[in-house]
Amino acid sequence: MRVRVLIRPKKGILDPQGQAVERALPALGFDGVSGVRVGRLVELDVEDPERLGEVCEKLLANPLIEDYEIEELTPAGAEAR
Amino acid sequence: MRVRVLIRPKKGILDPQGQAVERALPALGFDGVSGVRVGRLVELDVEDPERLGEVCEKLLANPLIEDYEIEELTPAGAEAR
Repeated sequence: MRVRVLIRPKKGILDPQGQAVERALPALGFDGVSGVRVGRLVELDVEDPERLGEVCEKLLANPLIEDYEIEELTPAGAEAR
Repeated sequence: MRVRVLIRPKKGILDPQGQAVERALPALGFDGVSGVRVGRLVELDVEDPERLGEVCEKLLANPLIEDYEIEELTPAGAEAR
């Protein structure tokens, strides 16, 4: 099953990359952009999606400062078994 | 309008972060994971989504080595005008 993990800085946690983007945009001539948050995107094939939460907590995200969200890209039923 | 930009290494471009994740997983006891690609996630509020492609090309992604995909999180019609 192919899954997508979205990793974002937790609410209230400083996001220096997002701030940098937000500050750079007006200098490049783009106005009207706000609320920029920069995170990570991980896409992977997993055989056993039940353990994916553990993978996220231990390897992909830092649960102290980041939240993660898992999206299925191919439904489990779509695979040959 | 709130939008999400997904930035991924282009196909064929080396993804050292993805390789690192893929190699680390068996050592942590997780097998059956493959095809790991690591990219960036940017979520932002834009007033004028027409210029977002230009923002992606100039600031968020490196078009030589990265592809980007834009997803609308709030449909344009949902906003008060």
